[in-house]
Amino acid sequence: MSAGDRQDVMSGAETHLVYPVFPRDTNHYHTLFGGMAMSWMDQAAFICATRWCRRPVVTVHSGAVDFHAPVPEGSIVDLVARVRATGRTSMTIVVEMWVEPMDQFERTLACQGEFVLVALDAQRQPTPVPALPTERVGGDDGVTRATV
Amino acid sequence: MSAGDRQDVMSGAETHLVYPVFPRDTNHYHTLFGGMAMSWMDQAAFICATRWCRRPVVTVHSGAVDFHAPVPEGSIVDLVARVRATGRTSMTIVVEMWVEPMDQFERTLACQGEFVLVALDAQRQPTPVPALPTERVGGDDGVTRATV
Amino acid sequence: MSAGDRQDVMSGAETHLVYPVFPRDTNHYHTLFGGMAMSWMDQAAFICATRWCRRPVVTVHSGAVDFHAPVPEGSIVDLVARVRATGRTSMTIVVEMWVEPMDQFERTLACQGEFVLVALDAQRQPTPVPALPTERVGGDDGVTRATV
Amino acid sequence: MSAGDRQDVMSGAETHLVYPVFPRDTNHYHTLFGGMAMSWMDQAAFICATRWCRRPVVTVHSGAVDFHAPVPEGSIVDLVARVRATGRTSMTIVVEMWVEPMDQFERTLACQGEFVLVALDAQRQPTPVPALPTERVGGDDGVTRATV
Amino acid sequence: MSAGDRQDVMSGAETHLVYPVFPRDTNHYHTLFGGMAMSWMDQAAFICATRWCRRPVVTVHSGAVDFHAPVPEGSIVDLVARVRATGRTSMTIVVEMWVEPMDQFERTLACQGEFVLVALDAQRQPTPVPALPTERVGGDDGVTRATV
Amino acid sequence: MSAGDRQDVMSGAETHLVYPVFPRDTNHYHTLFGGMAMSWMDQAAFICATRWCRRPVVTVHSGAVDFHAPVPEGSIVDLVARVRATGRTSMTIVVEMWVEPMDQFERTLACQGEFVLVALDAQRQPTPVPALPTERVGGDDGVTRATV
Repeated sequence: MSAGDRQDVMSGAETHLVYPVFPRDTNHYHTLFGGMAMSWMDQAAFICATRWCRRPVVTVHSGAVDFHAPVPEGSIVDLVARVRATGRTSMTIVVEMWVEPMDQFERTLACQGEFVLVALDAQRQPTPVPALPTERVGGDDGVTRATV
Repeated sequence: MSAGDRQDVMSGAETHLVYPVFPRDTNHYHTLFGGMAMSWMDQAAFICATRWCRRPVVTVHSGAVDFHAPVPEGSIVDLVARVRATGRTSMTIVVEMWVEPMDQFERTLACQGEFVLVALDAQRQPTPVPALPTERVGGDDGVTRATV
Repeated sequence: MSAGDRQDVMSGAETHLVYPVFPRDTNHYHTLFGGMAMSWMDQAAFICATRWCRRPVVTVHSGAVDFHAPVPEGSIVDLVARVRATGRTSMTIVVEMWVEPMDQFERTLACQGEFVLVALDAQRQPTPVPALPTERVGGDDGVTRATV
Repeated sequence: MSAGDRQDVMSGAETHLVYPVFPRDTNHYHTLFGGMAMSWMDQAAFICATRWCRRPVVTVHSGAVDFHAPVPEGSIVDLVARVRATGRTSMTIVVEMWVEPMDQFERTLACQGEFVLVALDAQRQPTPVPALPTERVGGDDGVTRATV
Repeated sequence: MSAGDRQDVMSGAETHLVYPVFPRDTNHYHTLFGGMAMSWMDQAAFICATRWCRRPVVTVHSGAVDFHAPVPEGSIVDLVARVRATGRTSMTIVVEMWVEPMDQFERTLACQGEFVLVALDAQRQPTPVPALPTERVGGDDGVTRATV
Repeated sequence: MSAGDRQDVMSGAETHLVYPVFPRDTNHYHTLFGGMAMSWMDQAAFICATRWCRRPVVTVHSGAVDFHAPVPEGSIVDLVARVRATGRTSMTIVVEMWVEPMDQFERTLACQGEFVLVALDAQRQPTPVPALPTERVGGDDGVTRATV
């Protein structure tokens, strides 16, 4: 890992969590329990936002999620979280959930969701977060967006 | 519990899950981890939908959720799930998450979400579900809605 | 839910927990592990007693439990807890565990148990609990019993 | 461990499980959650009975348990299970739960319970279990009891 | 259990943990997940060392472990931990993992590992531990070894 | 993520797992339980090896691990796994465990370990794995090593 990569990881530019889907994670149809998927997605968002602002964070909103196909036991699930936008005290994190069969190189996007987290100070009041770098700025509504 | 109540429960008219928020469920701020809340909500929706159609079900959509306030360790969380609407093979389930401090009679609505689940037959293809009773019917778009 | 219902729930008159029996909950015969059932029953009693007295509570006694039949993976388990009797500082909670196959409207009583919990004050000494309402009073031994 | 000891362990004469009480096991008073204790006791009984008969077993009865004192986080819990009596197809297992503070050599008996488990054959019907050795036989009611 | 046995157990001379391998503990090949085995071994070492010194302990080293054969779901796993050697502030604990099929009296050594733990005082600095009894002393390198 | 990056991830060149250290993961000193760390490391190795060979894999060896400092509750733990060497049917995976305090950009290497996993065919016999690319080849002992 180069120094540049490491900084990216540290700043929350991209956070990865990989899980094997084991029996403890499935429903009785032996596919990944939906609630477990949501829990893993929120965990990815939580870490990604923490890395971005290095402050306590709390989830205030989770966006809609469409699940395209059941994920069978024995799959590898790769959660990828990125900061998509920053407000004054909030961060919008996009989380993708990729599914790889254990025995194939292909993988598919199982679902995708947006989470909004707010940074808190020692009195548990909202506190400012770093803005996305200017070259990634988008809209004119006080919210800074990544261009990718 | 009267016979009528029992039928209501059995038919998925209303499903209750109560949890104590124990250390195993919290983040390191000792408030309920957001992902755990989502997992519990999906579990309530899963059971409510199963009771409605008595078939295998799978979550295909979870709607946006706004979290109003952190839930401290030691709270009681009461999840209430109801069938709000039925399509030909799908059910829309509303889940409310109520939070009671252990030492008070009051409780507050911490968040609310909608989940869409689809019933599956033995070939894992979508299969029809019972429609909501006529006295609860709403719109004219092929989706049957509860009036409450 | 009507105001009256809500008060009932809040006062611990009846507490419901519903669980799907997933692989994480079973033994290697893929039926619900007995210890898990007991844990769920105690959790229901814990919440029911807490709601009754709104104080810290601790389990001091669990009564005998007979398990009538193994509960297969994929069942829905509905735990129903009620206050059966109150002493000066103790509450006797009855917990029923109902089992519903996912694909049928019938359900059967898998087992039933009694738990005694004591309320504690800030010094962790036993402290009085509200008595059951007079219309539900039973015996003459200082213990108030529900008539149902 | 001598050959004799090993045989004792293998035959279920005495089964030990030791657990540290970690945050994942406690309620929000940071003492061992009662339901967790019951779950551990049943697990000890399950293994002890399995070792005795070397067949699938199922818990059909758990006796009353009195909890003498809360078990604080950070304790060591030692569960000791022994076969107390055998019927034709059933085994009565006594489980003691000993609690050791981490920093002291003393330990106290936190609670004790009896579990009855039945051995099953391949058709899941009750099947005979070995009787306790004659030198340990007690009553004349068709149940063989250990003298200790 | 005789008084002598009890002292042995209390002093950490030998610590036993028995687990059934349930679905929650397996990978998707339905054999014990390697990480779970390591976690159980460390837990046995943790308790054994705590019992020896009756102080807070922390794992500073885990030795190499060879896994001889997969452990199928439904096995009984018996972890046996013993103090092998003591330094001034450290303890070397050997942990054996024995596997018993549920339906047979034989058992096999699945793997074996060494863990080094250090005792800590209230300032979380290393603090002396009792030496192994003289009749068990081995080498001349400041480390006391058990002869067995 | 570029196509090249994706291929790297997919081929097991580098696998990332990030975890927040929550109360469920700690001992009663509220630092990460050592057994949990080992379990996470093995999980990273398991996925990394699976991605490399796209076959069922089993851990046959875990190397020694030195733990440099306790990891406090509330840290972010980043596990990074890489294929270091390949044999005919085995893969040697190096796993680093990095620890980031939630509130700082720095991170430190908490520990590092090597795991050897073997690929299995449908008869659960060892089966060949792809060799490391030639530009990364090292020794002349039949084992292919990465140069980094």
